Amino acid sequence: MADTKALTSRAADFSAWYNEIIARAELADYSPVRGCMVIRPNGYAIWEQMQRALDQMFKDTGHQNAYFPLFIPQSFLSREAEHVEGFAPEVAVVTHGGGKELEEPLIVRPTSETIIYAMYAKWIQSYRDLPLLINQWANVVRWEMRTRLFLRTTEFLWQEGHTAHATEAEAEEETRRMLGVYRTFMEDWMAMPVLTGLKTDSERFAGALRTYSCEALMQDNKALQAGTSHNLGQNFSRAFEVTFQTAAGTLDHVWNTSWGVSTRLVGALIMTHSDDNGLVCPPKLAQYQVVIVPIHKSDDERATVLDAAVRLRKELAAAGIRVHVDSREGMKPGAKYYEWEGRGVPLRLEVGPRDVASSSVVLARRTGGKKETFPMEGLPARIAGVMDQFQADLLAAALARREAASLRGATKEQFIARMEREGGLVYGGFCGRGACETEIKEHTKATIRVLPDPEFRSPEVPSRCIWCGGPSIVEAVWAKAY
Amino acid sequence: MADTKALTSRAADFSAWYNEIIARAELADYSPVRGCMVIRPNGYAIWEQMQRALDQMFKDTGHQNAYFPLFIPQSFLSREAEHVEGFAPEVAVVTHGGGKELEEPLIVRPTSETIIYAMYAKWIQSYRDLPLLINQWANVVRWEMRTRLFLRTTEFLWQEGHTAHATEAEAEEETRRMLGVYRTFMEDWMAMPVLTGLKTDSERFAGALRTYSCEALMQDNKALQAGTSHNLGQNFSRAFEVTFQTAAGTLDHVWNTSWGVSTRLVGALIMTHSDDNGLVCPPKLAQYQVVIVPIHKSDDERATVLDAAVRLRKELAAAGIRVHVDSREGMKPGAKYYEWEGRGVPLRLEVGPRDVASSSVVLARRTGGKKETFPMEGLPARIAGVMDQFQADLLAAALARREAASLRGATKEQFIARMEREGGLVYGGFCGRGACETEIKEHTKATIRVLPDPEFRSPEVPSRCIWCGGPSIVEAVWAKAY
Repeated sequence: MADTKALTSRAADFSAWYNEIIARAELADYSPVRGCMVIRPNGYAIWEQMQRALDQMFKDTGHQNAYFPLFIPQSFLSREAEHVEGFAPEVAVVTHGGGKELEEPLIVRPTSETIIYAMYAKWIQSYRDLPLLINQWANVVRWEMRTRLFLRTTEFLWQEGHTAHATEAEAEEETRRMLGVYRTFMEDWMAMPVLTGLKTDSERFAGALRTYSCEALMQDNKALQAGTSHNLGQNFSRAFEVTFQTAAGTLDHVWNTSWGVSTRLVGALIMTHSDDNGLVCPPKLAQYQVVIVPIHKSDDERATVLDAAVRLRKELAAAGIRVHVDSREGMKPGAKYYEWEGRGVPLRLEVGPRDVASSSVVLARRTGGKKETFPMEGLPARIAGVMDQFQADLLAAALARREAASLRGATKEQFIARMEREGGLVYGGFCGRGACETEIKEHTKATIRVLPDPEFRSPEVPSRCIWCGGPSIVEAVWAKAY
Repeated sequence: MADTKALTSRAADFSAWYNEIIARAELADYSPVRGCMVIRPNGYAIWEQMQRALDQMFKDTGHQNAYFPLFIPQSFLSREAEHVEGFAPEVAVVTHGGGKELEEPLIVRPTSETIIYAMYAKWIQSYRDLPLLINQWANVVRWEMRTRLFLRTTEFLWQEGHTAHATEAEAEEETRRMLGVYRTFMEDWMAMPVLTGLKTDSERFAGALRTYSCEALMQDNKALQAGTSHNLGQNFSRAFEVTFQTAAGTLDHVWNTSWGVSTRLVGALIMTHSDDNGLVCPPKLAQYQVVIVPIHKSDDERATVLDAAVRLRKELAAAGIRVHVDSREGMKPGAKYYEWEGRGVPLRLEVGPRDVASSSVVLARRTGGKKETFPMEGLPARIAGVMDQFQADLLAAALARREAASLRGATKEQFIARMEREGGLVYGGFCGRGACETEIKEHTKATIRVLPDPEFRSPEVPSRCIWCGGPSIVEAVWAKAY
C-alpha cells in the first residue's frame, strides 16, 4: 500500500532521505542477517538493466563470462602478501561442511583473484592462449561493520573481470580500456558524470600495481567510488605460477588485470538524480520507462479509455519502449501518480475520455518539464525523443551540480573551510607524501579520490602541495567519500 | 590446443565419455575446492542461453526477479521440522566473520525457503498483496560426498521461484503451471523429452506438501530429475507466520510454492544428445549456431574467401543467427572441423575459392545429415530452416530412444532383469506402500521417478503392484537415476 507521508528532504537529512527513497520505491529491504540486504523486485529490475548493458559492452570488447567457486581455500589468500593483509580482516569463514569440521577452512570470496588465477595457471601454457579475457557475475562477501543499503553491504552482487596478457603494455591497455567502458556506461546509461584517474597507494587495491577509478559526486557533495580497474602486474601470476611460453620460446609470467562494479551503482544512481518526491531513474535503466494511467468515471468511459491505453501500450512496446498500463481499480489517478513518482518512472501518460476523443495524450516528465499534450499519432517516435532529452538533461544537471561543487586552485584554508561546510571536490597540488595524505584525512576527513586523468586536470597545474606547500608532483582531487 | 585423441565411446564407459566430452569442449573444470566446479566460458554460454529463455518464460507468466541473502541464520532452518531434517546434514556453516566468532552460526543457503518466507511475512499484509510471484537466480551450496561435473556439485547455480497465494487452489495451479513451463523449456529448447508427474513421499522436497518433477532419460538409460515444482501448502507460512487479511476480513496463512532448475541441466543436455565425436548442442541453446570455416591456399584466395565469409556472417547475424568465422591462421580446416565438432556447434559452413566463384557454400550438420551445397543467395532463411529441422530431429531421436527403453506392463521378473541389464524406464502398478519402494530399491537400485501424469500413463492401467502383487493404487515409473 502506498505510503503517503512526505519524504524527509535532502536538505534536512540526506541519509534519512536516502533510506526513505529506497523504502518508498521498494528497492531493497533489511534482512534478518546482519549487514545483508534483500534486493526487492523494483531494485533488482534496475540492476538487471545495468547488467544487460554492461554485459553487452564486455562482450563487445571480447570478454566471455564464466563462473568460479564461491569458496576459496584459506591458504590461497596468503599467497599474495598485500592481498591477504587487505582482505583477511573482512572475510567470512566456513569451518564446517556436511556435519564435519573441515581440515582447511574455506573463506567466502571477497573477490576472486586467487581462485581464478589458480585456474589460469592450469589453462594457460602458451602465448597462443593469450589474452584470456573472462568476466564473472557473482555475489561476494566482505564483513562490514557499518552497512548501508546498496552502498556498503556484507554481501553484494557484482561483476569481476579477470584477464591475462603476454605483455605489460597490453595489460595496461586493458586496464584503461575497461575504465573507459565503465565511464561510458556511467555517463551514457546512468547519466552520472565521473572523474577518472589513478588512486594513490593508500587507496590502491590490495595486490595491484596500479588502481584506476571512476569517481562520482553525490548530491550531498560526498564522493562515491563507482568502479575500479586494476593493473595487477605480475603479482598474482608470480604467487600462483601462471606462466606461458613466449613466441620466442622463453617462459614468462602473465600480466593480469581485474576490474569490477557492483550493486553499489544502484545507490549511486539514487543519490545522483532523485529528489524530495522520490526516485528519479534515467530512462535507459528504468524498469518501466513509461506508465500509462487511464482516467475515467463511468464504466463506459473505462472501457473506451482502457482500450486506448492498451493500444498505446502495444504501439510503444513494439517500438522497444518498456511500458506499463496501471489499470488497478479502486485507486484514484492522483494516488497512482504519487506512487509512480516515488518509484522514479521517467514518463507518465494520462489518458482520459477527452484525450481519446481528440486522439491525444497528456505526457508528464518525472522532472524537468511541464505537462504537454501530444497527438496519439506518431507517439512512439515522440516518446523516444522525450526520453533522449530526459536522459541528456539528467546528465547535464548532474554535471552542472558537480562543477558547481568543485573548487580548483584552492588554498589550504579554503580547502579546510570547504570540508567543514559544503564539501564537494577540491583540486590541488600534492607533494606525493603519505604523511600529507594522512594529515589531511585527520584534519578534514577528505581523502584523495583520484589523481585525475589529463582531461580533468586544471588549466593551471598547481606548483605547490595544497597542505605542506612543498613542490607538487601531481594534481589531486580531494573529497569526503562514501 | 586441440586434443586429438579419440573420445572413449559411450558403449565402452559412459561416465568416462561424459567427462571427456566436458574436457574436450572446455565446458567445465575441477577446482581446487572440494566438490566445486569451474564453469568455463563454453559451458557458461550454454547456461546463459538457458537463463535467457527461462527468464523470459518466468516474466511472461508474471514473475519478477529479486535477490535474497546468501547466508541464513542457523535457527531459521529448524523452524520447519521436515525441512531441517532434510537439509541440516548437507549444509556449509560460517562460524567466523570479520575476525570474530559469530554469536549465531550462519548457514550458506542450500535453498532459500526460510529466508524468503521470513521476508514475505514482512511484506504481505492483505489479500491485495497476493499473489506474490518472485524468482531468484543464485548460487546454492549442498555438501555432497560424491560429485560429478554439472550433475552434482557442492556449489551450483540455479533459479528458485517462490510464490505466495491466497488459496490452496491457486497455489496448486501455480505449482502445475511452472512444471509446465519447465516441460516446455526442456522439450522446445533443450530438445529433451520429459515425463511429468508426482513424486512419492520418499522423494518429496523436505517441507513440501507435494513435489512434481520433470524426469528425463539419459543415453545410458539412467533417469535424471531435471526440474521440480513444489506445492508447499501452509507449512512454511505457519513456520514463518506469513499471514494475510482475507477479502472477508479474517486472518489466514498464505499458500506457498517453490520451483527450481539448475546448472544440472547442462549435464542433462550433454547426456541426451552428444555422441562419440563430442558435444551435440541443440541450435536454440548453442553459443554459436553456425561456424564458418574459410578454406584457402594462396594469399589471394585467402582475401577472397575471408571477404565472402565475413559478408555471410553479417547477413546471418542480421537475421538473428549466432555465427562465428574461424579465421585462425596456421591451422588446417580439418583441425577446425574437429574442434567445432567436439564443441557441439550445430552447423558448419565451408567456404572455399570454388564456392565463392559459384556463389555457394557447403553446409555440414553436426549430426543427422550429409554435406549439402546451398546458394549464398537467401542463405539466412535456409539456415533458419535447417536449424529448425535439426532441433526437431534431436527431440524426435531422444523421444524414440526413450520409448525404446521403456517397458510397460512388466512382470516382477522382467523388471528385475531390465534393471540388471539394460536399465531404462519400467512402468508398473504400485501398491503405495513404502515397504515395497524400499525393497525394490534394495533389490534393483531403481526408484520411483514419478507417478506419471495422465498423458504418460499406460493404456491398460495395471491392477497389481509390480512387486508385492497386492492391489495397485497408481501407476509408477521406475528407473535407476542420477
